[in-house]
Amino acid sequence: MATETPTRRSYRAAVASFEDGTSSPRAFLEDCLAAIDRLEPGIGAFVATNIDGARKAADEAGARWKSGRILSLIDGMPLCIKDIMETADMPTGQGSDLFAGWQGTRDCAAVAALREAGAVILAKAVTTEFAAQPARGTRNPWDPTRTPGGSSSGTAASVACGMVSGGLGTQGLGSTIRPASFCGVFAFKPSFGGINRGGSFDTVSQSSTSTFAATLEETWQIARAITSRIGGDPGYPGVSGPMDAPAPQTPRRVAVLYTEGWERTTDDARQALEEVRARLESAGIEVVEGTGHDRVAKVEDAISGGIELSRGLNNWDFRWPLNTYARDMDRNGLSSQARDRLVAAEAMTHEEYQALVRKRHGVRDVYEALKGDVEVCVTLSAPGPAPVGLDWTGDAVFAAPSSVLGTPSVSLPVLEADGLPLGLQVMGFANEDAAAMSAAGAVLALYSDQ
Amino acid sequence: MATETPTRRSYRAAVASFEDGTSSPRAFLEDCLAAIDRLEPGIGAFVATNIDGARKAADEAGARWKSGRILSLIDGMPLCIKDIMETADMPTGQGSDLFAGWQGTRDCAAVAALREAGAVILAKAVTTEFAAQPARGTRNPWDPTRTPGGSSSGTAASVACGMVSGGLGTQGLGSTIRPASFCGVFAFKPSFGGINRGGSFDTVSQSSTSTFAATLEETWQIARAITSRIGGDPGYPGVSGPMDAPAPQTPRRVAVLYTEGWERTTDDARQALEEVRARLESAGIEVVEGTGHDRVAKVEDAISGGIELSRGLNNWDFRWPLNTYARDMDRNGLSSQARDRLVAAEAMTHEEYQALVRKRHGVRDVYEALKGDVEVCVTLSAPGPAPVGLDWTGDAVFAAPSSVLGTPSVSLPVLEADGLPLGLQVMGFANEDAAAMSAAGAVLALYSDQ
Repeated sequence: MATETPTRRSYRAAVASFEDGTSSPRAFLEDCLAAIDRLEPGIGAFVATNIDGARKAADEAGARWKSGRILSLIDGMPLCIKDIMETADMPTGQGSDLFAGWQGTRDCAAVAALREAGAVILAKAVTTEFAAQPARGTRNPWDPTRTPGGSSSGTAASVACGMVSGGLGTQGLGSTIRPASFCGVFAFKPSFGGINRGGSFDTVSQSSTSTFAATLEETWQIARAITSRIGGDPGYPGVSGPMDAPAPQTPRRVAVLYTEGWERTTDDARQALEEVRARLESAGIEVVEGTGHDRVAKVEDAISGGIELSRGLNNWDFRWPLNTYARDMDRNGLSSQARDRLVAAEAMTHEEYQALVRKRHGVRDVYEALKGDVEVCVTLSAPGPAPVGLDWTGDAVFAAPSSVLGTPSVSLPVLEADGLPLGLQVMGFANEDAAAMSAAGAVLALYSDQ
Repeated sequence: MATETPTRRSYRAAVASFEDGTSSPRAFLEDCLAAIDRLEPGIGAFVATNIDGARKAADEAGARWKSGRILSLIDGMPLCIKDIMETADMPTGQGSDLFAGWQGTRDCAAVAALREAGAVILAKAVTTEFAAQPARGTRNPWDPTRTPGGSSSGTAASVACGMVSGGLGTQGLGSTIRPASFCGVFAFKPSFGGINRGGSFDTVSQSSTSTFAATLEETWQIARAITSRIGGDPGYPGVSGPMDAPAPQTPRRVAVLYTEGWERTTDDARQALEEVRARLESAGIEVVEGTGHDRVAKVEDAISGGIELSRGLNNWDFRWPLNTYARDMDRNGLSSQARDRLVAAEAMTHEEYQALVRKRHGVRDVYEALKGDVEVCVTLSAPGPAPVGLDWTGDAVFAAPSSVLGTPSVSLPVLEADGLPLGLQVMGFANEDAAAMSAAGAVLALYSDQ
């Protein structure tokens, strides 16, 4: 069991030591492996590792750092990959009994790009079944009786305690911002289409591949190492901007969103958001909210019901492949949740789905109209700390809006509730990921005393 | 070798005989199988068949027709599936040496839906490698020395000579409209996103799954049998409208597009288009063209260079998975064309791709501006009949515009050039597939004397 305070492990903080020869990517990797030896038995973040391959990749990266010919800013960075993304060297089980041990032949687009960038692909990280439900047993490094959140459970948990420096996840409802909040890590959920999803078993029409890391900058560096090589989803612009994290830029005005989740937010978490607000105002940032600002009020109204809207869309988006799994493979190999989801999907009509898609477009239009008023929105990443228990991955109410909206969103691990991590969420506007990152950097800087 | 005039085999023309008991879907299938025995050795349209499964499915469909409880209008229709789409019961080789005999575990979304609709999935149809290049030896049923066109080579060829009633293809450049033209079959390339591509090994950002059939109505019925069950690409509205083909509706005004292909169009084919024009005018349809109509002229200008634009986009869209195939599988298992494509993709930057995407948006905007002026555009499907030789799949110059534009397009096998089939193309506006089909039906009716 985890018996130490979870500590993130920044790779970029170590690169000076690779350049001056006092350390190496291989030594960094060995520290990760030592952390895995100590912590993984109690956490269960990984379904597969490729330690030999990682050591070889780290040694190659080391030679590049020595020679000054690195492939990217993240050359040699040890990463884990959510287990719905195909990898040539490790099985891809999708958190499903049906696919446990399934060995693909290819790297998914993002992993192929990461390898080109010199990254060290160390492990496949636990996902809930098909990145939906149920959870697959990963424990929260801060308290093993609590969920790490889902569906990117293993990525969040392993980055939180330094078993890797960063990793990939996805979010189609709350699967990145929520586990980042519960585990106390930085995460970046890009605009819809922001990171190429080729080879990810991800059929959800509002899902994005996302990055988790020890620092805000590294979430960006990982994302750009991918998109500079393989872009976003085909036909989308993809995350663009500098290879290094955009410089922080203090927003002039932000909207604080309370969302429908406010009513079920814990007292500690409510107080945390009010303190955020005070801190923003102390820094000279104008804060607006639904009360007193018509367009923010309209946004609050539009994003209300985001979980239900997402579930309807996601159910239909899952009709295939669940139907072929149930019919051509083994219905009993699906969880009861997956079977229920298929039943719900099969009860829907194409016209109902079309109506949900139109509704989502409408929500996005309302949000887009706020663009002239504020640079970003700020809210919590979750309505409280990780709940006790490993079955329920927690309330996605604060995470769902950026999924519905297709907007970039960042979770900053700077808050606490009940002595446990709580994320501060900064949400920008679609396809303006660099601007969202700049604002998030400025908000983070307000917590440099921590 | 083929020694008989290719004859399409309409399933819907036979359903009355299933209802009155004078024939059955099984008997219909056996006629297809007899045609396969006679013709397939000379044509080479299929890479795999599942005859036992097809007979079982046909018998089940027969029971439903007898009882009046059919699952869809195409219940029992024998179909082939382009071999880039995963099927649970037949291998999916993608026209690639690397994947020859690769057996997936799932049905792709469209095939799963077709089975739900009662369709009989008889065969996997030859595709060029990865639905790009090179061709894989299929011969044109009208002349075995000529290409059937590509990349949906096997689907077009097999539907043309009645080995199946219909089938699925795709088009990301010219892969549906061109082979439909060369083989003399009806084909429907929907709006971008029109038919769910889940489980198709198709990463091209302007590719659509398409339908081929013996009649125009059946191209629509197959498409709607799919989309009513699984929709379009996730997040897209998908092809919608009646389950049966929309009633023909004579357009008030059409634009004839000559395209940059006119200069390399054969004399016979040029004359064919001029006769189309005369026939439209005789029917009281106003015809406009670039000369004398500013917005049509702008469209002609905007779609010029469509092949080059498409190639640039498609190259980047192929960067993955070609990169992982070359690195993690076997570079020498890729054709020289695929290796060249990967080299071209790797020479591109993310920013160059973004510029091409913006350019494509611009072309689409120019075309969309024509919507108030004409109901559809009419042009050839190819600049002449199928060329001699099996290596080159022919000129995509007339087919590329609907790929770039993401518009619905139909090829009607009503023209001839040099005694061989030539398609008449009717192109509508994005996400208005039913309207395009209605207009195509009216244009087709002008050829009811044939």
